[in-house]
Amino acid sequence: MNHDAFIVPPNSKISLRKNYDPAYKTQFHEKTDAATKLQADIERLANYQNILYAQNTNALLIIFQAMDAAGKDSTIKHVMSGVNPQGCQVFSFKGPSDEELDHDYLWRTTRALPERGRIGIFNRSYYEEVLVVRVHPEILAKQQLPQLPQGNQIWKQRFEEINNFEKYLVNNGVIILKFFLNVSKSEQKKRFLDRIDSPEKHWKFSANDVKERAFWDDYMRAYEEVFNHTSTECAPWYIIPADRKWFTRLVVADIICTKLQNLNLQYPTVTEEHKQQLLQAKSILEQED
Amino acid sequence: MNHDAFIVPPNSKISLRKNYDPAYKTQFHEKTDAATKLQADIERLANYQNILYAQNTNALLIIFQAMDAAGKDSTIKHVMSGVNPQGCQVFSFKGPSDEELDHDYLWRTTRALPERGRIGIFNRSYYEEVLVVRVHPEILAKQQLPQLPQGNQIWKQRFEEINNFEKYLVNNGVIILKFFLNVSKSEQKKRFLDRIDSPEKHWKFSANDVKERAFWDDYMRAYEEVFNHTSTECAPWYIIPADRKWFTRLVVADIICTKLQNLNLQYPTVTEEHKQQLLQAKSILEQED
Repeated sequence: MNHDAFIVPPNSKISLRKNYDPAYKTQFHEKTDAATKLQADIERLANYQNILYAQNTNALLIIFQAMDAAGKDSTIKHVMSGVNPQGCQVFSFKGPSDEELDHDYLWRTTRALPERGRIGIFNRSYYEEVLVVRVHPEILAKQQLPQLPQGNQIWKQRFEEINNFEKYLVNNGVIILKFFLNVSKSEQKKRFLDRIDSPEKHWKFSANDVKERAFWDDYMRAYEEVFNHTSTECAPWYIIPADRKWFTRLVVADIICTKLQNLNLQYPTVTEEHKQQLLQAKSILEQED
Repeated sequence: MNHDAFIVPPNSKISLRKNYDPAYKTQFHEKTDAATKLQADIERLANYQNILYAQNTNALLIIFQAMDAAGKDSTIKHVMSGVNPQGCQVFSFKGPSDEELDHDYLWRTTRALPERGRIGIFNRSYYEEVLVVRVHPEILAKQQLPQLPQGNQIWKQRFEEINNFEKYLVNNGVIILKFFLNVSKSEQKKRFLDRIDSPEKHWKFSANDVKERAFWDDYMRAYEEVFNHTSTECAPWYIIPADRKWFTRLVVADIICTKLQNLNLQYPTVTEEHKQQLLQAKSILEQED
């Protein structure tokens, strides 16, 4: 699959509305067309993860950001369903605790970064610090910052800090993929109504979700700013059409697999010293009575 | 499946060698007999996990202890393969770091306990503190304890501390299952030789594994002590035959499913207040232009 339609080119200025259609589905017409490819990618992913784990050199960090009901939870569930849970950890970031607010804004997510050899998934992330915090600037006041830069200066500063942080991670072996699940406002409404009408989904719905929807345009502007400032060569943003869940999963799985494939992962080779140890161990075992 | 052959009855005195056969396989004769049941249990487990997550009341902590090559990694991989990684976290505990040694021995595992609604898996655990530390008492000296009780007093003290800790967890909503994968010494030898002879498994083999094997009998005695002192009503030990990997997986999956089934998990019911909020949200959505 060609990813040009999804990636945000670094140093570009994109428009979510004009350049990215939430209902886009390339050559795939129906869920059933995509099922075989998705299943194959899930199996490829499990295999890559085994080698990543054995190699113990790189970690893969996958960030999901989206409006409510865009399908973050279900995409994580379906795409990662075949992966050995020992090699994959998912962290969801909600409102920060008092202790977390007593630290810099990258502290709590940094503690949850994946170890070498593992896949770490952030369901929301430090990008909330330039999204929900930007849409509701009263949150900033709680962050006890030493001085509050005037106007938009704070967001430019944070974009730069995030870019530097991600570059540091990449330099040190963390591969970063950033996905925005791009759901349309009308599809979100449909999904909210579905949750309200389905008793088994009530627990997933909070009255606050509808309140946040009133800030839709502010969020879209904040997201565009994020994409235009933090899609870099080393950690690009992908904007994934999210009005059809089956297509979201298909594209996300394909991008993850392609990234891992391009790493040319290999099972670690054994050093001469380790080889000698193996032979010695074999001889000890064979001489047991 | 009846679990009587696997559980360690609280307040009993068992003998690993006499009471638990590593090659036991009940009525199942071959791997293929078991495949259908294992697959069904994996799907049941995924379904229970969905409700556990929605309910957000209980957590399930699953502890795996075993000698090397008993199949901890592969059991976790196969049994948990269908579970949503968002609701399941695996932590492996190796030798403690300097920071961890500066804390009490339950500190590092406590930080990794599963949140409500989740399954947490410990690949090794605080039980190492009464196993490897007991077999190699020189490790105790590094733990900077205020005073070292004489003789076996320290282990009795730790058993009591662990029992109290687990009782506290259970009181507060953590369900605990403890599995010992009971591999025979001869089967371990076969698996070590297989690792040495298979280049793609070399990374899994360390020369130290053979050194630890020399302490086999000491470990078996230490394990028996653990079972006889820490198999409690609220957190019993299960000793799982581990000479056949397919049978290990089958029994572990069955015990986990049975435990979750007995909880009678239900999707959360909505309070009257939440119901009103849902109706209000629906009316707001429907009145949008």
